[in-house]
Amino acid sequence: MTGQRSDARRNHTHILAVAEAEVAAQGAQASLERIARIAGVGSATVRRHFPTRKALLEAVFKQRIHALCDRAHTLRGEPDSRSALVEWLRELLAYSLAARGLADVLSYQPLQDEATQDSCAADLGAAGAVLLRKAIDDRAVRADITIDDLLVLIIGIALATENYTDPATQADRAFRLAVAGFGASGA
Amino acid sequence: MTGQRSDARRNHTHILAVAEAEVAAQGAQASLERIARIAGVGSATVRRHFPTRKALLEAVFKQRIHALCDRAHTLRGEPDSRSALVEWLRELLAYSLAARGLADVLSYQPLQDEATQDSCAADLGAAGAVLLRKAIDDRAVRADITIDDLLVLIIGIALATENYTDPATQADRAFRLAVAGFGASGA
Repeated sequence: MTGQRSDARRNHTHILAVAEAEVAAQGAQASLERIARIAGVGSATVRRHFPTRKALLEAVFKQRIHALCDRAHTLRGEPDSRSALVEWLRELLAYSLAARGLADVLSYQPLQDEATQDSCAADLGAAGAVLLRKAIDDRAVRADITIDDLLVLIIGIALATENYTDPATQADRAFRLAVAGFGASGA
Repeated sequence: MTGQRSDARRNHTHILAVAEAEVAAQGAQASLERIARIAGVGSATVRRHFPTRKALLEAVFKQRIHALCDRAHTLRGEPDSRSALVEWLRELLAYSLAARGLADVLSYQPLQDEATQDSCAADLGAAGAVLLRKAIDDRAVRADITIDDLLVLIIGIALATENYTDPATQADRAFRLAVAGFGASGA
């Protein structure tokens, strides 16, 4: 049994490493069949470890998503709650532009959906929601904004600029325009 | 020769009809091989008629894109140039939500790119740019906004809400937030 379990763990780590390379090269649409072939396992084995494409992508981006959650916790200590929120959103956008497929996996999963409570993406939404709550309580942004509204704009900007010759520059322009709509102090 | 040309035209129309059905079902990632198979032609024939995925998708969405260009021309006559611009963007968002794959094809092609001048997407950008110019001249929106900034936000909202259980409602919330950043009168 121990041998079987450590085999399964090795398989899991190996499939994940192959998946990371394929997603970096092909984005969120990376072929699961190709990942299985390169990893030297059957498609059924990939599916046993990662039942859905979303599950696989969440595993690929787990560390990045956790890092963004940690940043949200750190930024809660900032005195200017509007700047803290905007800075966190800017980092989320930068991560999404840098890691092909991250914006796709975050868009896969509506955060308001009860069924997604235990996922990485739900953690990210919850971490951002705390920053937003603080900014609303400080009357530093409009009270009718939800964290989903903000994530849709940020993830959308990342997805829509993907094919630009200079995604970062166009994304930054759209980001500033979106932030200008948050209300209270200037962008 | 005439026979060959009319064969080619029939082929073109037939492949396009199959592509429309496949894109409606599968979105912008619809398989070109599958389209060829259903159309009963070889992949090379599909590629001869539509050299790239983008070319095929532009053909699929040509009528919708032209309808949006026509709307922009009509809205130029409206006295309130800010409302006209916002209304046009709202219709672009509604079209993008209704037609799977449309937002993808519009995001494929940066409008500032010289090489894209003769495409449908470039027409759309040019049509929207006239509405934006009028609103800026009327000091009804911020002068530093470009049509690419607006298209990135609208197309991004459509892409990021695709997997929501109720895309239209979440997209409308994000749209209002984005519009609030345009400056001048209220959202």
